[in-house]
Amino acid sequence: MNPGIRRLLQNPASFLTSAPSDGVCISSRIRLSRNLAGTPFPLAASPEEAVRVVDEVKNACSRPSVIGCPECLFFDIESLDDMEKLALTERRLASADLITSPIPAAVEVSGYESCAVMVNEEDHLRMQVLHPGFRLEECWKQIAALDDELGDELDFAWDDELGYLTACPTNLGTGLRASVMLHLPGLVLSGEIDATVHGINKLGLAVRGIYGEGSGNLGHLYQISNQVTLGESEESIIEQLSAVIRQIVEYERRARVKLLREDRFSLLDHVGRAYGTLQNCYRLSVNEALESLSGIRLGVELGLFQHLGIGTVNELFVELAPGHLQIRSELALPEDEQNILRAKLFRTKLRERS
Amino acid sequence: MNPGIRRLLQNPASFLTSAPSDGVCISSRIRLSRNLAGTPFPLAASPEEAVRVVDEVKNACSRPSVIGCPECLFFDIESLDDMEKLALTERRLASADLITSPIPAAVEVSGYESCAVMVNEEDHLRMQVLHPGFRLEECWKQIAALDDELGDELDFAWDDELGYLTACPTNLGTGLRASVMLHLPGLVLSGEIDATVHGINKLGLAVRGIYGEGSGNLGHLYQISNQVTLGESEESIIEQLSAVIRQIVEYERRARVKLLREDRFSLLDHVGRAYGTLQNCYRLSVNEALESLSGIRLGVELGLFQHLGIGTVNELFVELAPGHLQIRSELALPEDEQNILRAKLFRTKLRERS
Repeated sequence: MNPGIRRLLQNPASFLTSAPSDGVCISSRIRLSRNLAGTPFPLAASPEEAVRVVDEVKNACSRPSVIGCPECLFFDIESLDDMEKLALTERRLASADLITSPIPAAVEVSGYESCAVMVNEEDHLRMQVLHPGFRLEECWKQIAALDDELGDELDFAWDDELGYLTACPTNLGTGLRASVMLHLPGLVLSGEIDATVHGINKLGLAVRGIYGEGSGNLGHLYQISNQVTLGESEESIIEQLSAVIRQIVEYERRARVKLLREDRFSLLDHVGRAYGTLQNCYRLSVNEALESLSGIRLGVELGLFQHLGIGTVNELFVELAPGHLQIRSELALPEDEQNILRAKLFRTKLRERS
Repeated sequence: MNPGIRRLLQNPASFLTSAPSDGVCISSRIRLSRNLAGTPFPLAASPEEAVRVVDEVKNACSRPSVIGCPECLFFDIESLDDMEKLALTERRLASADLITSPIPAAVEVSGYESCAVMVNEEDHLRMQVLHPGFRLEECWKQIAALDDELGDELDFAWDDELGYLTACPTNLGTGLRASVMLHLPGLVLSGEIDATVHGINKLGLAVRGIYGEGSGNLGHLYQISNQVTLGESEESIIEQLSAVIRQIVEYERRARVKLLREDRFSLLDHVGRAYGTLQNCYRLSVNEALESLSGIRLGVELGLFQHLGIGTVNELFVELAPGHLQIRSELALPEDEQNILRAKLFRTKLRERS
């Protein structure tokens, strides 16, 4: 196994480690798109140019800095096997586009995984800071510092009128995308989610599923992010998003209280069945695991479980994914065997705690 | 509450008390149809004639005999409330037709519930003997003795050529219907059930669901009974049925072994999910309860549970029914509240044992 991957997998995914939680916001993320001046964007770059970009970014990341060297990890994507690539995406350290990049690509990860710099994704650099809970301010401070440090080493493509230049015009200007992942079972179960999503969209924000665009509302999880990157300051973008998130958290909480008060047995039934299935099944798909784990997360947040904490839920949330599952078993497995193994993982973890 | 019903409900339903079981046959039943000579069949009887029939049968049953007086219980159907009537059908001591009879009707039940005599169902008398497991021989000995004893007291309608006369020609002759209730999850899960049912039908036997004709295969339960009552001796009818039952039991056992060997995880998953749902849900319909309890029964028979015995399964099988459920709660409840109460019953019973 790649020694870096091995080191990563010794710890829980940092974006899910326990943080002071409002019970709704799972994680916060800010990423900045940057490109090197005078070098073609990755889509147009030759293999030699791509390799040079990887080397330059690797070199820039190699001094003690925000990204946290010497503990930081550098992953040359080509050197990883399929399970290892998947594991990086499951920890949200690499995108699907990065791990399938046709040209040399890489990712630099800080020791605690809170910072990552993807190289040769859509842009030369995609830096991100990712934290558990609702912590956009902290993400912003940290990524601004990282951006400054890397900017000292690298010559970022910049236009005085447009701001940072990016491969896709939707990222032009700040190159900033801030997003929060929210768990909204209350709004889903009470039928209020469609109106909520509609309202968020009208405010110019994007709502996506856990696996990005088109992944629906699997596990009652929603990622809400800014769409506008041009013509506004980073602080203003983040403050507008934060205000909306605060409001959605409040809606979700009210929906949960209302369900508990007015439809208590439906809520208990939903949570109980999810728990009963995960604790006793012998075949479990990713989708069913995420759906049922959502029910358990809701139960934990509502204090319905005595012996089960949010730490177990968060741990299972990452460990259930195909890459983690297969790496743990040290076997590349067909889907049906993954389903059998996933069921065993849940039976074991949930029985320990019951 | 009717004191007789109260006494019945102090004990588990006798047809489900633990008996040496083959793991497939739930219960065996033989009933005989008899009518009083010179009296119109129930459908054509006046209320006065119906009352006279009830009195005559009650009187005939009132001496120490097979039916077990003085411990036997007499139920005047009109005197029972809806929940009590349901409870009698759930213990298989009365039929749906009996409890909705437009004329005075009754049922006489032996102390241990193994014998019952319905009065003014389709025929004046429908006597039955009901035992747990595959015990048709014992049923036959007992009901033949009961028939003899009642025949000494009552003048049964009889024709030298046709045999016993009955309201419906399908019962003519012996008036005998023998049936065994089988639990066939192995044949269902392995997809062999349709061919099996087809084969049984070709042998001239009837296959019905747990609630009689048209009730499907709820809970993987099947009642198999003779159709022919005329032109064959009682012993011959019972022997033919028994031979078929023995064969189906063998098929079912083979199907279970095959599933365990060749599709073990599907079987474990089926059983585990049933258990997880019943142990953790907060709303449970009759149908879902029966379906899931079937999974648990299979698991118990295959030795998959350490702390759960067939006694609990059998107890729940009767207690989940609407009449028993409402009588236990001492409340007539709307369906949704029955579902909530039923879920609580399962959570409590299954957690006691886990």
